[in-house]
Amino acid sequence: MNLLERLTFFIKDNSLFEDDDKILLTVSGGRDSMLLTFLLAKAGYQIAIAHCNFKLRGAESDLDECLVRDFAEAHGIPFYVRHFDTEQIASERGISIQMAARELRYSWFEELREALSFDKIAVAQHLNDHIETVLLNLSRGTGLQGLQGIQAKRDRLIRPLLFLKAEEVLHYVQEYQIPYRDDQSNFSTKYARNKVRIDIIPQFKKMQPDFERIFEQNIAHFKESYALLQQFITPLRNDLFIKEQEAWIIEKEKLRKHITDLPLLYELFSPFCFSKSVLTDLQSCFDKESGRLFQSEGYDLLLDRDFLIIREKEYKQEDETIITSETKSVSWRNYSFCCDYSHDVSIVRDKQIAKIDTNLLIFPLTLRAWKTGDYFYPLGMTGRKKLSDLFNNYKVNVFEKGNVPILINGNGDIIWVANYQLDNRYKISGNTNKVFILSCK
Amino acid sequence: MNLLERLTFFIKDNSLFEDDDKILLTVSGGRDSMLLTFLLAKAGYQIAIAHCNFKLRGAESDLDECLVRDFAEAHGIPFYVRHFDTEQIASERGISIQMAARELRYSWFEELREALSFDKIAVAQHLNDHIETVLLNLSRGTGLQGLQGIQAKRDRLIRPLLFLKAEEVLHYVQEYQIPYRDDQSNFSTKYARNKVRIDIIPQFKKMQPDFERIFEQNIAHFKESYALLQQFITPLRNDLFIKEQEAWIIEKEKLRKHITDLPLLYELFSPFCFSKSVLTDLQSCFDKESGRLFQSEGYDLLLDRDFLIIREKEYKQEDETIITSETKSVSWRNYSFCCDYSHDVSIVRDKQIAKIDTNLLIFPLTLRAWKTGDYFYPLGMTGRKKLSDLFNNYKVNVFEKGNVPILINGNGDIIWVANYQLDNRYKISGNTNKVFILSCK
Repeated sequence: MNLLERLTFFIKDNSLFEDDDKILLTVSGGRDSMLLTFLLAKAGYQIAIAHCNFKLRGAESDLDECLVRDFAEAHGIPFYVRHFDTEQIASERGISIQMAARELRYSWFEELREALSFDKIAVAQHLNDHIETVLLNLSRGTGLQGLQGIQAKRDRLIRPLLFLKAEEVLHYVQEYQIPYRDDQSNFSTKYARNKVRIDIIPQFKKMQPDFERIFEQNIAHFKESYALLQQFITPLRNDLFIKEQEAWIIEKEKLRKHITDLPLLYELFSPFCFSKSVLTDLQSCFDKESGRLFQSEGYDLLLDRDFLIIREKEYKQEDETIITSETKSVSWRNYSFCCDYSHDVSIVRDKQIAKIDTNLLIFPLTLRAWKTGDYFYPLGMTGRKKLSDLFNNYKVNVFEKGNVPILINGNGDIIWVANYQLDNRYKISGNTNKVFILSCK
Repeated sequence: MNLLERLTFFIKDNSLFEDDDKILLTVSGGRDSMLLTFLLAKAGYQIAIAHCNFKLRGAESDLDECLVRDFAEAHGIPFYVRHFDTEQIASERGISIQMAARELRYSWFEELREALSFDKIAVAQHLNDHIETVLLNLSRGTGLQGLQGIQAKRDRLIRPLLFLKAEEVLHYVQEYQIPYRDDQSNFSTKYARNKVRIDIIPQFKKMQPDFERIFEQNIAHFKESYALLQQFITPLRNDLFIKEQEAWIIEKEKLRKHITDLPLLYELFSPFCFSKSVLTDLQSCFDKESGRLFQSEGYDLLLDRDFLIIREKEYKQEDETIITSETKSVSWRNYSFCCDYSHDVSIVRDKQIAKIDTNLLIFPLTLRAWKTGDYFYPLGMTGRKKLSDLFNNYKVNVFEKGNVPILINGNGDIIWVANYQLDNRYKISGNTNKVFILSCK
């Protein structure tokens, strides 16, 4: 097979795109992206070029842009370019220049794709990038998933050159006399990926001249093993994890037979990213501490009496709403509150309404969620009580209690656990002359 | 934990041996095996030292032996040594010196272990050997299985030092002032493993100073994934592969639902080592070509009408038995043959007896198995017939036909397909004056 046939075969074999799809090609001017542009144009696909000028290497950056623009014009390929003040944006956002360039690049590509109705965005990564990714993951610690390398296709992003070795790319740009400009930063060993490229892969090639092909086969094997494992895990997970509205419910009884098998547990819970140490905790208190909460980056897991309940962390940021003396209405999460003042000192039995002695209030008041350690003096009880105990009494589970609005006075006192209980200190009394009425819907 | 505690923890954690086990330590005199000896002695285990002098490095080899012997005497450890003429043995057997040394070493250790009733043989490989093995496998092509590294325990062989980094070994032999002698060949980059050790791992360590520990974790993850996959595959295999005497029988109907899933098939058949390309062949003729034989290094798989039948290759070597004019009796595989001469030209109907015109024989005759392309002129039929067709007529399956003794004349003619058919050209006729009688049991 010649190169064009190999490319077409790879595209078909991996279902990268359809013949009549419109492809937006991201072209830096380096040999990889120039070769890909040349080949896709030669194969007659509908392509356009998008070039980012990050202004990071002075005149060099502009020369890259010229090269790509000239090539696009010479081959009648639509050309789009955008200039970024990458350094400034990086410093504004407090992120690295690499990270900023990456974010700018992908958001502009996506914008362009949508605006001009492209079907796919093509990136020119090749086999050596694929292998570097795996070797990098190995150096940083990885499981089987980290051995999958770069995906040839993910959503609309495609990588049609993933079958080609770096040395083949060089060979073909020379053979076809394709213009390109090397980015000198690729040759520095400053970054880990460059170290893998320059110091590690060539050493492997000394042992094994066909290293890239062999490693490509390795990755294919690892992918197969991973997919095969998922083939067994997925039906088991589907059987165990029942989606109910916002939560996944797992019957403890059903999970019990797997609970001692940590590797299996880890795979089963992998969509929720619970660490092995958290799962080890879960194992050890599976039958002991119902009510305990376990956390991952994005999810909470509640170990209830008969069920495990997993929910996405909805409010990762602290959220608080302020009530000033002027506030008429306010909302906090899914609740809305109306504020009013009155001289009616009659008692209401409605848990959704708090009548408070206005003289005791220190504005601004705050509405927020429960925090560990919160306590107050519940009306109708003697003394101080932890909110967690109150919730336990009412059999409020961890997820619900996280959503109960707590009204805080300006001095930090808890005035009201909305929908549950008012604080004894803030109730209206014989001395009350003005009543603050807060009602919750 | 200090070093001794780490060692003890590793021994217990991996159930390497029991406290009262007798351990035969294989000690080269290098830093790894000297440290292991020192530590196991210090921990109070029952140990003895076995040292091989391969005589490969002249006086150096003898100095190694002295060092180990002196150490053993100083610490009151039983010491066993054997001298090998490794180069000569390698050349006699036509194998590499490394291979010869390996074979000699392990067979002597095993001999010693049995003779002196040791429970385990301990080898001093460390974490870096473990990692080198995985990196070597990666450079040569591997699946998940090749990422398992060196086993800490396999049968009676144990590797108690597998938790320790190479640089830690060096640190501790210095700290404890343990004598050792470095084998200079370890520093040459002549062999692939040394390349990994000297050129590749240090490059990874430049990127990631804690590379060994991270890679140790990687390997642990890969092991878990592999074990987890086996957890799913094994019951499926046990359900499909039914062992009957010498064969494994698989119902085609049961296998059908998995037949298109090559990765699963590969895992299911993995104990029999069928390659993916052979299994792809099997897939493509699963419902078409019953009677076809598929082969791996050690096994034959027969695709029969309703079953797949797998058997171990019994006769990997060509085996032939010679019959001279003097032979009285001879055996071939499970059959025995008696040879006799007579003047009785009467016809026998017994398929186990061949009566042949002696004048036509060219000694020595040969008994061998059927080969592809074999043909003869069956008695009672006209013309030439392929043996494969004859076997088909008799519904002899592939395994059986491989065991049918074929009698070959000195000129290459097939004289007799024992137990089935004589060749027309060799039958006794009106001109026959001396009969050669071969009977098969």
